[in-house]
Amino acid sequence: FISLSYCKRLQNVLVLIGDDAGFESPVYNNNICKTPNLMKLAERSVIFKQAYTSVSSCSPSRSAILSGLPQHQNGMYGLHHSVHHFNSFDKVQSLPLLLQKAGIRTGIIGKKHVGPEYVYPFDFSQTEENHSILQIGRNITYMKNYLRQFLNSNDTRPFFMYIGFHDPHRCGATHPEYGSFCEKFGNGEPGMGSIVDWQPVHYKPDDVIVPYFVQDTPIARADIAAQYTTISRLDQGIGLMIKELELAGVLDDTLIIYSSDNGIPFPNGRTNLFDAGMAEPMLISSPYNTQRWAQQSDAMVSLVDIVPTVLEWFGLHYPDYKLNKQPVKLTGKSLLPILSEEPTNGWDHVYASHDLHEVTMYYPMRVLRNRQFKLIHNLNYKMPFPIDQDFYLSPTFQDILTRTRHKENLNWTKSLKTYYYRTQWELYDILNDPQELNNLAYNKQYLDVIKSLKIELNQWQNVTADPWICAPNGVLEASGTYKSHPSCLPLDNDT
Amino acid sequence: FISLSYCKRLQNVLVLIGDDAGFESPVYNNNICKTPNLMKLAERSVIFKQAYTSVSSCSPSRSAILSGLPQHQNGMYGLHHSVHHFNSFDKVQSLPLLLQKAGIRTGIIGKKHVGPEYVYPFDFSQTEENHSILQIGRNITYMKNYLRQFLNSNDTRPFFMYIGFHDPHRCGATHPEYGSFCEKFGNGEPGMGSIVDWQPVHYKPDDVIVPYFVQDTPIARADIAAQYTTISRLDQGIGLMIKELELAGVLDDTLIIYSSDNGIPFPNGRTNLFDAGMAEPMLISSPYNTQRWAQQSDAMVSLVDIVPTVLEWFGLHYPDYKLNKQPVKLTGKSLLPILSEEPTNGWDHVYASHDLHEVTMYYPMRVLRNRQFKLIHNLNYKMPFPIDQDFYLSPTFQDILTRTRHKENLNWTKSLKTYYYRTQWELYDILNDPQELNNLAYNKQYLDVIKSLKIELNQWQNVTADPWICAPNGVLEASGTYKSHPSCLPLDNDT
Ligand SMILES: [Ca+2]
Ligand SMILES: [Ca+2]
Ligand SMILES: [Mg+2]
Ligand SMILES: [Mg+2]
Repeated sequence: FISLSYCKRLQNVLVLIGDDAGFESPVYNNNICKTPNLMKLAERSVIFKQAYTSVSSCSPSRSAILSGLPQHQNGMYGLHHSVHHFNSFDKVQSLPLLLQKAGIRTGIIGKKHVGPEYVYPFDFSQTEENHSILQIGRNITYMKNYLRQFLNSNDTRPFFMYIGFHDPHRCGATHPEYGSFCEKFGNGEPGMGSIVDWQPVHYKPDDVIVPYFVQDTPIARADIAAQYTTISRLDQGIGLMIKELELAGVLDDTLIIYSSDNGIPFPNGRTNLFDAGMAEPMLISSPYNTQRWAQQSDAMVSLVDIVPTVLEWFGLHYPDYKLNKQPVKLTGKSLLPILSEEPTNGWDHVYASHDLHEVTMYYPMRVLRNRQFKLIHNLNYKMPFPIDQDFYLSPTFQDILTRTRHKENLNWTKSLKTYYYRTQWELYDILNDPQELNNLAYNKQYLDVIKSLKIELNQWQNVTADPWICAPNGVLEASGTYKSHPSCLPLDNDT
Repeated sequence: FISLSYCKRLQNVLVLIGDDAGFESPVYNNNICKTPNLMKLAERSVIFKQAYTSVSSCSPSRSAILSGLPQHQNGMYGLHHSVHHFNSFDKVQSLPLLLQKAGIRTGIIGKKHVGPEYVYPFDFSQTEENHSILQIGRNITYMKNYLRQFLNSNDTRPFFMYIGFHDPHRCGATHPEYGSFCEKFGNGEPGMGSIVDWQPVHYKPDDVIVPYFVQDTPIARADIAAQYTTISRLDQGIGLMIKELELAGVLDDTLIIYSSDNGIPFPNGRTNLFDAGMAEPMLISSPYNTQRWAQQSDAMVSLVDIVPTVLEWFGLHYPDYKLNKQPVKLTGKSLLPILSEEPTNGWDHVYASHDLHEVTMYYPMRVLRNRQFKLIHNLNYKMPFPIDQDFYLSPTFQDILTRTRHKENLNWTKSLKTYYYRTQWELYDILNDPQELNNLAYNKQYLDVIKSLKIELNQWQNVTADPWICAPNGVLEASGTYKSHPSCLPLDNDT
């Protein structure tokens, strides 16, 4: 536990969130995709090998990052923008709100994608709400200039700065002219604009590392090569931001957290809760705890741990309050102790919860992931797993569709049919089956395991006031007669 | 067309909306359930025999009533309150907002159940937001007093008053002490409170008329008898409100519209788009068109016609604007011409659109209903039809569950299994099969009929910017390459 009470130095926090970023980095044993800046950050960080998002969808994940509450507890059930129109509940006591009340200066640069504004207020706000998302999320020179402006102000309060890179999110659906991953945006070629601080790095499809959950085909490889180029922009952006801290003389007083909101936008990744969708890179760098710099941690941690971490850093407490008449409990814990010492117990499981992505994509899932097992509950399982608009148009997904239609070899671990149609329960022995291919949920030998995992998952759903706790085979009754003993009552609906 | 330009008299509008009210009235040939006040209103109204809601769920329906836009177009995809947390889009130009801008005085008493506040502002607002819903929605004396206060003000502007009765909505889930339909609330017995202006009317279960879509059993009959008692409170409330207009001397200058937001809370009713769920009572009384008083109209009309009707009454136009970059077109039409003359053409079809009710109840449906046919598209059809929390606990639904479990005769036109599991498409020849029991959607003889209906439904979905237009077997692409030609692209997902 860091004793902050007698520290007279100003202490700041910088949170860097990649958009759909994965493990494409030597920090995570991918030696093809170069990320010198991330590596430099890793040298001064604890490298988390088992970090997970609580949900693999942009706005829900960012709402959980910024509130410490899983999506079903904070109200951001799906995407925030446009017709999707999801918002956190009005009374959520988010991290920026709590910090603002405590006199910490708050800033955001880049992708915000959560709301309402009064739940997630920032003193300094440069986001897609007042800029083109391409400029404020991918133009690292433009972003750097705003960070410099923020750091050069006369405000002497400690600060919390949250930078939402929009890289390496796909952009082929909205801006095909820039490439499937916007890998050409700002590369200086005619019509592409120029991002002064970026030196694009190019890769040959033959050289990329195809993740185990993606089909190994020329089209997928080319798609990954484009992703890697965009990752070079993300990486150089990370370097620029940290350099600005250094130039402003605050690097040695700033806790830095790097992570990503959800899995990569490839099959089995984003919007899924396989590890491909929910495992995240995470680096935490404390200037006051250098003893664990460059060390790895195997603690199982979640993005809902970020709020308690930052609250502890600033010496603040989470308030007692209710949402929709339910008491609010943070289920995450501060990660600061791990920066001093690798834990010998605890930190052995995480939970995940998904409801929607686009508003037409209803596929609620609830997950308990411990060291050995992953339990997935698919609540809308009889309908096919939905595909999002930008992923649909991606070369990689189109390749799966085309090959399936032409009955060609996919060179994939799944078929389109098994990707679409899943069983209500999935149980994977991750230690023996890390690719999550062998579903043990209907294997009688695992009845006790499943029963025990279901109970634990249900407890978490209870504590986090999950409206879906009884779905799909029961109805939650919690009013009138059931007010004192909320209950799941059976529908007898063959689920 | 009513020439309003030279009318010097003040002209007002009173909209009375029942909550889950149906056709339990001699006005609609139910001679058991007495509704003398509704009958008195009918004597000065055109009685619409083919009025329909565009959606059979409370907040979505009220958002469509108050905006003129179906739920998928205005953003209120499901219930507004508590964890459900749906809201209309920020830029919706609702009726109260337009009237307020035009200098009409706006008031609401009773159930509101829509938001945000700035989309649906009312000058005078007495709703569940500042009162107990039992008092402001069912206590007709309490409601009458607020209407009197509104009418007695010194404000001389024309007014739009919207009264949202909470009767005859069930209350057994939240307040079982008052009975399954709150039929004991305020009846003067010990512990029930007293509503001074209400004389409860009681019915014997043997005497009630069991709708064709409800099982005929003693439990269902007792449930209906309770509903009838609550309807006596709604009816007497309607009488009280109209009396207040008379006492204030404005009855002869006020257009009165009576309807209900969705079907009755019985099997096949509310949350369904069978006629049992979407057919609504509607009475429109114009003091300036007495020639059609007490006449019936067979025009097929929708609750989305209310906004154009009130706009025409006040001589206002609907603005040109966009929502989420899509131009907004009202698809309803003013009903005022029908008060002068029964139309000889047009008014021959209505549309309906449902997405969610409670946030856990995802069952999107799209419907085209013309004089002969009803086409229903069930988008999430492989999963069972969901059951809402208050309906689940109702005696009628519990009776279905119990009889099914004990393999007893249901005396119903369906089984629990067929109620839960529906086909993707349903086509009913309403003229020959008014109970919608014989699904013709997979009957080859009707291929041309279905094709033609699908095209027409799709056109309406297009004009109303429906995000679900391609679901469930396709993805809507409307950006980048597809910006100029939005398209449904196939998922190959066996739906
Ligand atoms: Ca993302
Ligand atoms: Ca209702
Ligand atoms: Mg635990
Ligand atoms: Mg038409």
